Amino acid sequence: MNSEKSGKKRGFFITFEGPEGAGKSTQVAMLLDFLKKNNRPAVTTREPGGTALAEKIREVVKGHDGNEKMHDRTELLLMEAARSQHVQEFILPRLESGVSVICDRFSDSTIAYQGGARGLDKDDILFLNRFAAVGLVPDLTFLLDLSPEDGFARTRKRSETAGQFDRFEAEKIDFHRTVRRSFLELAEAEPERIKVIDAARDQRSVHEDIVRIINEFI
Amino acid sequence: MNSEKSGKKRGFFITFEGPEGAGKSTQVAMLLDFLKKNNRPAVTTREPGGTALAEKIREVVKGHDGNEKMHDRTELLLMEAARSQHVQEFILPRLESGVSVICDRFSDSTIAYQGGARGLDKDDILFLNRFAAVGLVPDLTFLLDLSPEDGFARTRKRSETAGQFDRFEAEKIDFHRTVRRSFLELAEAEPERIKVIDAARDQRSVHEDIVRIINEFI
Repeated sequence: MNSEKSGKKRGFFITFEGPEGAGKSTQVAMLLDFLKKNNRPAVTTREPGGTALAEKIREVVKGHDGNEKMHDRTELLLMEAARSQHVQEFILPRLESGVSVICDRFSDSTIAYQGGARGLDKDDILFLNRFAAVGLVPDLTFLLDLSPEDGFARTRKRSETAGQFDRFEAEKIDFHRTVRRSFLELAEAEPERIKVIDAARDQRSVHEDIVRIINEFI
Repeated sequence: MNSEKSGKKRGFFITFEGPEGAGKSTQVAMLLDFLKKNNRPAVTTREPGGTALAEKIREVVKGHDGNEKMHDRTELLLMEAARSQHVQEFILPRLESGVSVICDRFSDSTIAYQGGARGLDKDDILFLNRFAAVGLVPDLTFLLDLSPEDGFARTRKRSETAGQFDRFEAEKIDFHRTVRRSFLELAEAEPERIKVIDAARDQRSVHEDIVRIINEFI
Protein backbone atom coordinates (compact mmCIF):
# COMPACT_ATOMS: atom_id res chain seq x y z
CA MET A 1 0.00 0.00 0.00
CA ASN A 2 1.33 3.48 -0.76
CA SER A 3 1.02 6.52 1.41
CA GLU A 4 -0.68 8.81 -1.07
CA LYS A 5 0.22 12.10 0.57
CA SER A 6 3.99 11.74 0.47
CA GLY A 7 4.23 9.31 -2.45
CA LYS A 8 6.42 7.35 -0.02
CA LYS A 9 6.05 3.60 0.09
CA ARG A 10 4.30 2.37 3.18
CA GLY A 11 6.48 0.25 5.49
CA PHE A 12 5.91 -3.47 5.95
CA PHE A 13 4.20 -4.72 9.07
CA ILE A 14 5.87 -8.00 10.08
CA THR A 15 4.89 -9.98 13.18
CA PHE A 16 6.45 -12.90 15.06
CA GLU A 17 4.29 -15.44 16.84
CA GLY A 18 4.94 -18.58 18.83
CA PRO A 19 5.44 -19.75 22.42
CA GLU A 20 7.86 -18.41 25.01
CA GLY A 21 11.27 -19.92 24.39
CA ALA A 22 10.90 -20.08 20.60
CA GLY A 23 13.48 -17.34 20.12
CA LYS A 24 11.13 -14.59 18.94
CA SER A 25 13.06 -11.67 20.44
CA THR A 26 16.36 -12.96 19.01
CA GLN A 27 14.84 -13.38 15.54
CA VAL A 28 13.17 -9.97 15.75
CA ALA A 29 16.59 -8.40 16.44
CA MET A 30 18.29 -10.40 13.66
CA LEU A 31 15.64 -9.40 11.13
CA LEU A 32 15.99 -5.76 12.14
CA ASP A 33 19.74 -5.94 11.46
CA PHE A 34 19.12 -7.58 8.10
CA LEU A 35 16.62 -4.95 6.98
CA LYS A 36 18.85 -2.09 8.09
CA LYS A 37 21.86 -3.56 6.24
CA ASN A 38 19.64 -3.63 3.16
CA ASN A 39 18.74 0.05 3.57
CA ARG A 40 15.19 -0.59 4.66
CA PRO A 41 14.31 1.62 7.62
CA ALA A 42 12.73 -0.53 10.34
CA VAL A 43 11.92 -0.57 14.03
CA THR A 44 11.03 -3.34 16.45
CA THR A 45 8.35 -3.41 19.11
CA ARG A 46 6.38 -5.93 21.15
CA GLU A 47 2.92 -6.76 22.44
CA PRO A 48 1.49 -6.19 24.92
CA GLY A 49 3.35 -2.90 25.25
CA GLY A 50 5.11 -0.65 22.78
CA THR A 51 4.21 2.76 24.26
CA ALA A 52 4.45 4.06 27.83
CA LEU A 53 0.68 3.74 28.30
CA ALA A 54 0.52 0.31 26.67
CA GLU A 55 3.38 -0.84 28.93
CA LYS A 56 1.40 0.37 31.92
CA ILE A 57 -1.51 -1.77 30.77
CA ARG A 58 0.88 -4.68 30.17
CA GLU A 59 1.99 -4.40 33.79
CA VAL A 60 -1.60 -4.60 35.00
CA VAL A 61 -2.00 -7.88 33.09
CA LYS A 62 1.38 -9.51 33.65
CA GLY A 63 1.94 -8.26 37.17
CA HIS A 64 -1.47 -9.29 38.49
CA ASP A 65 -0.86 -11.11 41.73
CA GLY A 66 -3.81 -13.48 41.84
CA ASN A 67 -5.36 -12.24 45.11
CA GLU A 68 -8.31 -11.38 42.88
CA LYS A 69 -9.04 -13.72 39.98
CA MET A 70 -8.53 -11.91 36.67
CA HIS A 71 -11.48 -13.01 34.53
CA ASP A 72 -10.72 -14.13 30.97
CA ARG A 73 -12.78 -11.34 29.40
CA THR A 74 -10.96 -8.77 31.53
CA GLU A 75 -7.59 -10.08 30.41
CA LEU A 76 -8.69 -10.02 26.77
CA LEU A 77 -10.03 -6.46 26.98
CA LEU A 78 -6.82 -5.26 28.63
CA MET A 79 -4.72 -6.86 25.90
CA GLU A 80 -6.90 -5.19 23.28
CA ALA A 81 -6.66 -1.83 25.05
CA ALA A 82 -2.85 -2.07 24.98
CA ARG A 83 -3.01 -3.09 21.30
CA SER A 84 -5.28 -0.21 20.40
CA GLN A 85 -2.85 2.29 21.92
CA HIS A 86 0.18 0.57 20.39
CA VAL A 87 -1.30 0.49 16.87
CA GLN A 88 -2.57 4.05 16.80
CA GLU A 89 0.27 5.71 18.70
CA PHE A 90 3.29 3.74 17.49
CA ILE A 91 2.75 1.31 14.60
CA LEU A 92 0.51 3.17 12.13
CA PRO A 93 2.46 6.47 12.15
CA ARG A 94 5.69 4.57 11.34
CA LEU A 95 4.17 2.44 8.59
CA GLU A 96 2.71 5.56 7.02
CA SER A 97 6.08 7.31 7.04
CA GLY A 98 7.67 4.39 5.20
CA VAL A 99 9.28 2.60 8.17
CA SER A 100 8.75 -1.14 8.50
CA VAL A 101 7.60 -2.37 11.90
CA ILE A 102 8.63 -5.75 13.30
CA CYS A 103 6.39 -6.74 16.18
CA ASP A 104 6.94 -9.49 18.77
CA ARG A 105 3.39 -10.94 19.06
CA PHE A 106 0.17 -9.48 17.66
CA SER A 107 -3.46 -10.46 17.00
CA ASP A 108 -2.74 -14.13 16.29
CA SER A 109 -1.43 -14.54 19.84
CA THR A 110 -4.73 -13.26 21.15
CA ILE A 111 -6.63 -15.90 19.21
CA ALA A 112 -4.24 -18.66 20.27
CA TYR A 113 -4.01 -17.72 23.96
CA GLN A 114 -7.36 -16.15 24.81
CA GLY A 115 -9.39 -18.09 22.27
CA GLY A 116 -7.82 -21.49 21.63
CA ALA A 117 -6.54 -22.03 25.12
CA ARG A 118 -8.89 -20.05 27.39
CA GLY A 119 -11.97 -20.89 25.36
CA LEU A 120 -13.32 -17.41 24.65
CA ASP A 121 -15.45 -17.22 21.51
CA LYS A 122 -13.28 -16.83 18.42
CA ASP A 123 -15.70 -14.46 16.66
CA ASP A 124 -15.73 -12.17 19.70
CA ILE A 125 -11.92 -12.09 19.62
CA LEU A 126 -11.86 -11.42 15.87
CA PHE A 127 -14.22 -8.48 16.42
CA LEU A 128 -12.03 -7.13 19.23
CA ASN A 129 -8.82 -7.64 17.23
CA ARG A 130 -10.22 -5.64 14.33
CA PHE A 131 -11.65 -2.93 16.58
CA ALA A 132 -8.44 -2.50 18.59
CA ALA A 133 -6.12 -2.60 15.56
CA VAL A 134 -8.38 -0.26 13.57
CA GLY A 135 -8.39 -2.97 10.90
CA LEU A 136 -4.58 -3.33 10.66
CA VAL A 137 -3.45 -6.85 9.64
CA PRO A 138 0.23 -7.92 9.34
CA ASP A 139 1.69 -8.14 5.83
CA LEU A 140 3.73 -11.14 6.92
CA THR A 141 3.78 -13.28 10.06
CA PHE A 142 6.48 -15.73 11.15
CA LEU A 143 5.16 -18.47 13.38
CA LEU A 144 8.15 -19.86 15.30
CA ASP A 145 6.82 -23.33 15.97
CA LEU A 146 8.14 -25.26 18.96
CA SER A 147 6.78 -28.05 21.15
CA PRO A 148 5.76 -27.00 24.68
CA GLU A 149 8.42 -29.36 26.05
CA ASP A 150 11.20 -27.64 24.09
CA GLY A 151 9.78 -24.22 24.95
CA PHE A 152 9.69 -25.00 28.65
CA ALA A 153 13.23 -26.38 28.62
CA ARG A 154 14.44 -23.08 27.20
CA THR A 155 12.35 -20.73 29.37
CA ARG A 156 13.22 -22.69 32.49
CA LYS A 157 16.87 -21.88 31.89
CA ARG A 158 15.98 -18.24 31.37
CA SER A 159 13.69 -18.08 34.44
CA GLU A 160 16.24 -19.66 36.78
CA THR A 161 18.32 -16.60 36.04
CA ALA A 162 15.40 -14.20 36.38
CA GLY A 163 14.22 -16.04 39.46
CA GLN A 164 10.56 -16.39 38.53
CA PHE A 165 7.94 -17.53 36.05
CA ASP A 166 5.30 -15.03 34.95
CA ARG A 167 1.58 -15.87 34.95
CA PHE A 168 1.53 -17.19 31.40
CA GLU A 169 4.61 -19.38 31.78
CA ALA A 170 3.10 -20.94 34.87
CA GLU A 171 0.09 -22.35 32.99
CA LYS A 172 0.18 -26.08 32.59
CA ILE A 173 1.44 -27.97 29.57
CA ASP A 174 -1.99 -28.84 28.09
CA PHE A 175 -2.69 -25.14 27.78
CA HIS A 176 0.48 -24.71 25.73
CA ARG A 177 -0.39 -27.68 23.53
CA THR A 178 -3.72 -26.03 22.75
CA VAL A 179 -1.96 -22.73 22.03
CA ARG A 180 0.39 -24.48 19.60
CA ARG A 181 -2.51 -26.21 17.82
CA SER A 182 -4.37 -22.87 17.52
CA PHE A 183 -1.33 -21.18 15.98
CA LEU A 184 -0.93 -24.01 13.45
CA GLU A 185 -4.62 -23.82 12.53
CA LEU A 186 -4.31 -20.09 11.92
CA ALA A 187 -1.29 -20.72 9.66
CA GLU A 188 -3.22 -23.37 7.76
CA ALA A 189 -6.10 -20.95 7.20
CA GLU A 190 -3.82 -18.12 6.01
CA PRO A 191 -0.75 -19.71 4.39
CA GLU A 192 0.03 -16.59 2.34
CA ARG A 193 0.42 -14.41 5.41
CA ILE A 194 1.56 -16.83 8.12
CA LYS A 195 4.82 -18.75 7.52
CA VAL A 196 5.56 -21.65 9.85
CA ILE A 197 9.23 -21.90 10.85
CA ASP A 198 10.67 -24.87 12.73
CA ALA A 199 12.13 -23.13 15.78
CA ALA A 200 13.71 -26.23 17.33
CA ARG A 201 16.86 -25.56 15.25
CA ASP A 202 19.74 -23.16 15.91
CA GLN A 203 19.21 -19.39 15.61
CA ARG A 204 21.25 -19.08 12.42
CA SER A 205 19.18 -21.66 10.49
CA VAL A 206 15.94 -20.09 11.64
CA HIS A 207 17.18 -16.65 10.58
CA GLU A 208 18.20 -17.97 7.14
CA ASP A 209 14.69 -19.32 6.56
CA ILE A 210 13.25 -15.96 7.54
CA VAL A 211 15.59 -14.04 5.24
CA ARG A 212 14.73 -16.32 2.32
CA ILE A 213 11.00 -15.67 2.85
CA ILE A 214 11.54 -11.93 3.32
CA ASN A 215 13.51 -11.74 0.07
CA GLU A 216 10.71 -13.52 -1.80
CA PHE A 217 8.16 -11.24 -0.19
CA ILE A 218 9.96 -7.99 -0.95
CA MET B 1 -35.24 -13.57 37.67
CA ASN B 2 -34.89 -16.23 40.36
CA SER B 3 -31.73 -17.99 41.32
CA GLU B 4 -32.86 -21.54 40.71
CA LYS B 5 -30.28 -23.27 42.85
CA SER B 6 -31.13 -21.61 46.13
CA GLY B 7 -34.74 -20.71 45.37
CA LYS B 8 -33.63 -17.28 46.61
CA LYS B 9 -34.89 -14.22 44.74
CA ARG B 10 -32.24 -12.59 42.65
CA GLY B 11 -31.30 -9.05 43.77
CA PHE B 12 -32.18 -5.98 41.73
CA PHE B 13 -29.51 -4.32 39.64
CA ILE B 14 -30.09 -0.55 39.83
CA THR B 15 -27.83 2.00 38.13
CA PHE B 16 -27.46 5.77 38.35
CA GLU B 17 -26.44 7.81 35.34
CA GLY B 18 -25.92 11.49 34.64
CA PRO B 19 -23.18 14.12 34.61
CA GLU B 20 -20.71 14.97 37.36
CA GLY B 21 -22.42 17.24 39.87
CA ALA B 22 -25.87 15.69 39.47
CA GLY B 23 -25.68 14.17 42.93
CA LYS B 24 -25.34 10.53 41.93
CA SER B 25 -23.22 9.44 44.88
CA THR B 26 -25.55 11.16 47.37
CA GLN B 27 -28.61 9.51 45.81
CA VAL B 28 -26.87 6.15 45.68
CA ALA B 29 -26.23 6.40 49.45
CA MET B 30 -29.80 7.56 50.20
CA LEU B 31 -31.28 4.70 48.18
CA LEU B 32 -29.05 2.21 49.98
CA ASP B 33 -30.37 3.48 53.33
CA PHE B 34 -33.93 3.26 52.10
CA LEU B 35 -33.55 -0.34 50.88
CA LYS B 36 -31.85 -1.43 54.10
CA LYS B 37 -34.59 0.15 56.23
CA ASN B 38 -37.06 -1.87 54.18
CA ASN B 39 -35.16 -5.09 54.87
CA ARG B 40 -33.82 -5.46 51.38
CA PRO B 41 -30.14 -6.42 51.47
CA ALA B 42 -28.21 -4.11 49.17
CA VAL B 43 -24.72 -2.86 48.39
CA THR B 44 -23.40 0.11 46.44
CA THR B 45 -20.56 0.26 43.96
CA ARG B 46 -19.31 2.44 41.15
CA GLU B 47 -17.85 2.37 37.64
CA PRO B 48 -15.15 2.39 36.59
CA GLY B 49 -13.93 0.50 39.62
CA GLY B 50 -15.64 -1.75 42.14
CA THR B 51 -12.88 -4.31 42.71
CA ALA B 52 -9.16 -3.86 43.47
CA LEU B 53 -8.22 -4.80 39.91
CA ALA B 54 -10.97 -2.68 38.35
CA GLU B 55 -9.81 0.27 40.50
CA LYS B 56 -6.30 -0.24 39.20
CA ILE B 57 -7.66 -0.02 35.66
CA ARG B 58 -9.69 3.04 36.64
CA GLU B 59 -6.47 4.70 37.77
CA VAL B 60 -4.84 4.03 34.42
CA VAL B 61 -7.74 5.83 32.70
CA LYS B 62 -8.40 8.67 35.13
CA GLY B 63 -4.82 9.29 36.17
CA HIS B 64 -3.44 9.39 32.63
CA ASP B 65 -1.24 12.46 32.44
CA GLY B 66 -1.56 13.39 28.78
CA ASN B 67 2.15 13.14 27.87
CA GLU B 68 0.93 10.41 25.55
CA LYS B 69 -2.46 10.90 23.91
CA MET B 70 -4.89 8.22 25.10
CA HIS B 71 -6.76 7.16 21.97
CA ASP B 72 -10.54 6.89 22.20
CA ARG B 73 -10.60 3.17 21.45
CA THR B 74 -7.98 2.58 24.17
CA GLU B 75 -10.08 4.46 26.71
CA LEU B 76 -13.18 2.51 25.72
CA LEU B 77 -11.43 -0.87 25.95
CA LEU B 78 -10.02 0.01 29.39
CA MET B 79 -13.47 1.01 30.64
CA GLU B 80 -14.86 -2.27 29.34
CA ALA B 81 -12.03 -4.25 30.94
CA ALA B 82 -12.83 -2.65 34.31
CA ARG B 83 -16.53 -3.38 33.75
CA SER B 84 -15.90 -6.99 32.86
CA GLN B 85 -13.99 -7.54 36.09
CA HIS B 86 -16.54 -5.60 38.14
CA VAL B 87 -19.53 -7.51 36.76
CA GLN B 88 -18.03 -10.99 37.08
CA GLU B 89 -16.16 -10.52 40.35
CA PHE B 90 -18.52 -8.25 42.30
CA ILE B 91 -21.97 -7.62 40.81
CA LEU B 92 -23.16 -11.02 39.53
CA PRO B 93 -22.23 -13.01 42.66
CA ARG B 94 -24.21 -10.55 44.82
CA LEU B 95 -27.27 -10.48 42.56
CA GLU B 96 -27.28 -14.27 42.52
CA SER B 97 -27.18 -14.46 46.30
CA GLY B 98 -30.21 -12.17 46.56
CA VAL B 99 -28.45 -8.88 47.30
CA SER B 100 -29.46 -5.82 45.27
CA VAL B 101 -26.62 -3.83 43.73
CA ILE B 102 -26.78 -0.06 43.26
CA CYS B 103 -24.14 1.09 40.82
CA ASP B 104 -22.90 4.65 40.20
CA ARG B 105 -22.58 4.65 36.36
CA PHE B 106 -22.78 1.65 34.04
CA SER B 107 -23.14 0.84 30.32
CA ASP B 108 -25.29 3.87 29.48
CA SER B 109 -22.42 6.17 30.49
CA THR B 110 -20.18 4.40 28.02
CA ILE B 111 -22.63 5.08 25.20
CA ALA B 112 -23.10 8.71 26.24
CA TYR B 113 -19.42 9.53 26.85
CA GLN B 114 -17.48 7.31 24.44
CA GLY B 115 -20.20 7.14 21.79
CA GLY B 116 -22.30 10.27 21.82
CA ALA B 117 -19.54 12.65 22.78
CA ARG B 118 -16.33 11.04 21.45
CA GLY B 119 -17.97 9.77 18.31
CA LEU B 120 -17.11 6.09 18.49
CA ASP B 121 -19.54 3.84 16.62
CA LYS B 122 -22.57 3.05 18.76
CA ASP B 123 -22.88 -0.55 17.51
CA ASP B 124 -19.25 -1.21 18.42
CA ILE B 125 -19.92 0.10 21.93
CA LEU B 126 -23.09 -1.96 22.26
CA PHE B 127 -21.11 -5.06 21.30
CA LEU B 128 -18.41 -4.23 23.86
CA ASN B 129 -20.96 -3.42 26.58
CA ARG B 130 -22.62 -6.80 26.11
CA PHE B 131 -19.31 -8.65 25.93
CA ALA B 132 -17.87 -6.99 29.03
CA ALA B 133 -21.05 -7.29 31.11
CA VAL B 134 -21.63 -10.90 30.01
CA GLY B 135 -25.07 -9.72 28.90
CA LEU B 136 -26.07 -8.10 32.22
CA VAL B 137 -28.49 -5.16 31.81
CA PRO B 138 -29.79 -3.03 34.73
CA ASP B 139 -33.32 -3.74 35.97
CA LEU B 140 -33.79 -0.03 36.59
CA THR B 141 -31.74 3.05 35.76
CA PHE B 142 -32.10 6.55 37.22
CA LEU B 143 -30.90 9.25 34.89
CA LEU B 144 -30.16 12.31 37.05
CA ASP B 145 -30.62 14.96 34.42
CA LEU B 146 -28.83 18.29 34.83
CA SER B 147 -27.67 21.00 32.44
CA PRO B 148 -23.87 21.20 31.95
CA GLU B 149 -23.96 24.73 33.40
CA ASP B 150 -25.56 23.52 36.65
CA GLY B 151 -23.26 20.50 36.74
CA PHE B 152 -20.17 22.66 36.35
CA ALA B 153 -21.32 25.10 39.00
CA ARG B 154 -21.56 22.22 41.46
CA THR B 155 -18.36 20.40 40.53
CA ARG B 156 -16.39 23.63 40.52
CA LYS B 157 -17.25 24.09 44.16
CA ARG B 158 -16.21 20.52 44.87
CA SER B 159 -12.98 20.81 42.85
CA GLU B 160 -11.87 24.02 44.49
CA THR B 161 -11.74 21.98 47.65
CA ALA B 162 -10.06 19.01 45.98
CA GLY B 163 -7.73 21.37 44.14
CA GLN B 164 -8.09 19.87 40.65
CA PHE B 165 -10.35 18.82 37.82
CA ASP B 166 -9.96 15.32 36.42
CA ARG B 167 -9.62 14.60 32.69
CA PHE B 168 -13.35 14.26 32.09
CA GLU B 169 -14.34 17.39 33.97
CA ALA B 170 -11.85 19.40 31.98
CA GLU B 171 -13.58 18.67 28.66
CA LYS B 172 -15.37 21.64 27.22
CA ILE B 173 -19.04 22.40 27.61
CA ASP B 174 -20.13 21.24 24.13
CA PHE B 175 -18.91 17.79 24.99
CA HIS B 176 -21.17 17.76 28.07
CA ARG B 177 -24.14 18.99 26.04
CA THR B 178 -23.67 16.05 23.69
CA VAL B 179 -23.39 13.69 26.65
CA ARG B 180 -26.66 15.01 28.07
CA ARG B 181 -28.44 14.63 24.74
CA SER B 182 -27.16 11.05 24.40
CA PHE B 183 -28.44 10.14 27.86
CA LEU B 184 -31.86 11.60 27.08
CA GLU B 185 -32.02 9.69 23.79
CA LEU B 186 -31.22 6.46 25.61
CA ALA B 187 -34.03 7.19 28.09
CA GLU B 188 -36.43 7.88 25.25
CA ALA B 189 -35.54 4.57 23.61
CA GLU B 190 -35.96 2.57 26.85
CA PRO B 191 -38.55 4.39 29.01
CA GLU B 192 -39.39 1.24 30.99
CA ARG B 193 -35.84 0.83 32.23
CA ILE B 194 -34.47 4.39 32.29
CA LYS B 195 -36.28 6.95 34.47
CA VAL B 196 -35.35 10.60 33.96
CA ILE B 197 -35.16 12.57 37.21
CA ASP B 198 -34.79 16.36 37.31
CA ALA B 199 -31.61 16.71 39.35
CA ALA B 200 -31.62 20.52 39.53
CA ARG B 201 -33.79 20.28 42.67
CA ASP B 202 -32.77 19.62 46.27
CA GLN B 203 -31.54 16.16 47.34
CA ARG B 204 -34.68 15.37 49.33
CA SER B 205 -37.05 15.95 46.37
CA VAL B 206 -34.87 13.90 44.06
CA HIS B 207 -34.76 11.07 46.61
CA GLU B 208 -38.55 11.15 46.99
CA ASP B 209 -39.00 10.71 43.24
CA ILE B 210 -36.62 7.78 43.30
CA VAL B 211 -38.38 6.11 46.22
CA ARG B 212 -41.74 6.48 44.49
CA ILE B 213 -40.40 4.76 41.38
CA ILE B 214 -38.67 2.07 43.41
CA ASN B 215 -41.89 1.31 45.26
CA GLU B 216 -43.80 0.97 42.00
CA PHE B 217 -41.05 -1.22 40.61
CA ILE B 218 -40.84 -3.56 43.59
